[in-house]
Amino acid sequence: MKLYGAPMPAPNPRRVRIFLAEKGIDLAETPLDMRKREHKSDEHRARNSLGQVPTLELDDGTTLSETVAICRYFEEIQPSPSLFGTTPFEMATVDMWVRRIEFTLMMPVGNYWRHAHPFTAALLTQFKEFGESNRDVYAGAQKWLNKELGSRPFIAGNDYTMADICALSTVDFATWIGVPLNPALENLSRWHTTVTARLSAAA
Amino acid sequence: MKLYGAPMPAPNPRRVRIFLAEKGIDLAETPLDMRKREHKSDEHRARNSLGQVPTLELDDGTTLSETVAICRYFEEIQPSPSLFGTTPFEMATVDMWVRRIEFTLMMPVGNYWRHAHPFTAALLTQFKEFGESNRDVYAGAQKWLNKELGSRPFIAGNDYTMADICALSTVDFATWIGVPLNPALENLSRWHTTVTARLSAAA
Repeated sequence: MKLYGAPMPAPNPRRVRIFLAEKGIDLAETPLDMRKREHKSDEHRARNSLGQVPTLELDDGTTLSETVAICRYFEEIQPSPSLFGTTPFEMATVDMWVRRIEFTLMMPVGNYWRHAHPFTAALLTQFKEFGESNRDVYAGAQKWLNKELGSRPFIAGNDYTMADICALSTVDFATWIGVPLNPALENLSRWHTTVTARLSAAA
Repeated sequence: MKLYGAPMPAPNPRRVRIFLAEKGIDLAETPLDMRKREHKSDEHRARNSLGQVPTLELDDGTTLSETVAICRYFEEIQPSPSLFGTTPFEMATVDMWVRRIEFTLMMPVGNYWRHAHPFTAALLTQFKEFGESNRDVYAGAQKWLNKELGSRPFIAGNDYTMADICALSTVDFATWIGVPLNPALENLSRWHTTVTARLSAAA
């Protein structure tokens, strides 16, 4: 198979790379040059009609897109070590946390990037005031997550899961675009140190 | 167990009700009065720290939130009929489409509701121009989905899945808030007629 992606700081391809590193799956990424808009080319749109990365192409030519769906595919074909939970309750809990991280933590970062960052201003119509407002939304999301992390080591419970991968890629991307973690939030800082110390974080 | 929800037109509780109807699972909803902000009460925040519905409370008192995660729990404890796929590729494909529907189709509807609709103007700070811009984004998302539906009966393939449930609740909610489906999009209209004709759609 072939995994189309893009190098750092693109957060979504990184999530798949971290996931594969945690699984011990050796699959080199085929990078697309996003500055040259290769992800929006006809060739790539034939693989992914939304023109996004990551996209996984299987050996029979079928394709899968969306970061979490690609990771779920690898979880199914190689269940161990589990990163999506194993019992029905664990699986639902990890899914809940993946979704909460994406909708509550990632969304304001994405909105800020899309609507307030100078880099995207050159490419897209921005609503700057809306974009800027997402700094506060992200600050609130960090506080909420900090409180949640007061009762357990990882985001979905006692084990490192896909939810931690989603959160790590989000906060590192946010730092890169000028919205760093609030260092006063001790549980969140402790969590960030812990997950960053894993070998997979370098992926 | 106890399922906390809210009646129509709230789109997320409806998704769980449709899912349960498709599964043939008989579980009455415990409605919260969202106009009285019961979902933001301390009592409900103890179940769901984000103060949202739906939330599922299991018999041991543990809770699960997030629509798709709750449905995934029921899929795991009662796999048939499958609504999330059965092979690794099917499961990843359904997940991909659930995510595409949420990020590409539902997001502009939610942004319009949140930032441009008069109902939410009374409750929250809006960025109106941004909110209004989401009408065009939603129009574009409909066109994309219409094209995708040219090659198959349901959103993720030949079978009705969770992705159809997510899309149905989204477009019906959009219509309710004044952003109806574009009737010129024939594949999308045909799909909408088909999924609306299922008994579960009344849930």
